[in-house]
Amino acid sequence: MKILPKSVIKLIDEFSSLPGIGPKTASRLVFYLISRPKIELDNFAEKLTSLTLKLTSCKICYIIAENDLCPICLDPNRDRSTILVVEGPLDCVAIEKTGFQGCYFVLGGAISPIDGIGPDELNIKQLIDRLKLNEDKVSEVILATDPSLEGEATALYITSKINQAKEEKQIDSKLIVTRIARGLPVGGDLEYADEVTLTRSLEGRNLVEMKGGI
Amino acid sequence: MKILPKSVIKLIDEFSSLPGIGPKTASRLVFYLISRPKIELDNFAEKLTSLTLKLTSCKICYIIAENDLCPICLDPNRDRSTILVVEGPLDCVAIEKTGFQGCYFVLGGAISPIDGIGPDELNIKQLIDRLKLNEDKVSEVILATDPSLEGEATALYITSKINQAKEEKQIDSKLIVTRIARGLPVGGDLEYADEVTLTRSLEGRNLVEMKGGI
Repeated sequence: MKILPKSVIKLIDEFSSLPGIGPKTASRLVFYLISRPKIELDNFAEKLTSLTLKLTSCKICYIIAENDLCPICLDPNRDRSTILVVEGPLDCVAIEKTGFQGCYFVLGGAISPIDGIGPDELNIKQLIDRLKLNEDKVSEVILATDPSLEGEATALYITSKINQAKEEKQIDSKLIVTRIARGLPVGGDLEYADEVTLTRSLEGRNLVEMKGGI
Repeated sequence: MKILPKSVIKLIDEFSSLPGIGPKTASRLVFYLISRPKIELDNFAEKLTSLTLKLTSCKICYIIAENDLCPICLDPNRDRSTILVVEGPLDCVAIEKTGFQGCYFVLGGAISPIDGIGPDELNIKQLIDRLKLNEDKVSEVILATDPSLEGEATALYITSKINQAKEEKQIDSKLIVTRIARGLPVGGDLEYADEVTLTRSLEGRNLVEMKGGI
């Protein structure tokens, strides 16, 4: 017998349909919301309905934005000669915390044949076109796709596309393509690191310079 | 720099304010919602706004309901002589799955002096009053509060209140008060059980009868 009111069950179902939220978590969330004032629920609902009303993607870097250009592409103080390539907008948010001063390019995912995502489903062509046009005199492309199988494959694919365009003299041969370092996470424990991470960490070892510290 | 659109950040904040949802989970949920059709978000929003519009609590058992009486208290087939006392409505949902045929009583929490919840904040007086009136000829009260410090304290408090009313001849002396069994969870591992659970499990041991199995 359904002993909970319909409106409660419906909202529990709605929360359960979100990724990573099971029926038990959904129930807890809904019972928390029941205890809140009506005005809070209305605010929440209003933010939901207005979410996708004004959203588009930046014409230059493809991050989600409310206008044709995102705040970063509009900012005259950002270094336009460095483009950091990521899979999604949340990656930009993470990188932004490091104080990175260059610009971004959002691919919209990573190449994953199992999920039916090939290079054409991503913004790779747009990235190559931007490098060919080279309005910003780009000197370095930093590939910051995830250190996963899909992310690595995507980074390799983009590198090969850029090299091909370099050979065809469509992209400046001085353009540098780099990949973010893979190694032990800071604060991590060598003892518990997996062998792939350790291998990468050894391959990418740096010369210790005693000037300013390690 | 805030690189995400305001509407996205606002909804992330809204999800982050829910219990057990941190900023990273909230971001993932919002980016999932961005990818959904507008109509789905509107549906979600509509369910949020209509959640508390019609909610009240059952006049008999205090479970949340859309009308004065809940479906269980309205059902003529339920056994009204057995009342199972729980802390919250979700406990009823869990018990309902066992095929329990009696009625419920929702306390609205457990006694917890640290959180400022005393007996007066719960529906304990209402429970005692219901037993005194005894319109349903109740023969057993099953205390199914959580097996936590607060739940045990609440069960003890209710027992003492019922015993007091029995002495004052306000509650039938034949009324039985029981407490759900505490012991090893089915499918659990004795090796990993804590000592309190093991002690309870030994105290509550049953005679093995060989008739139908153990």
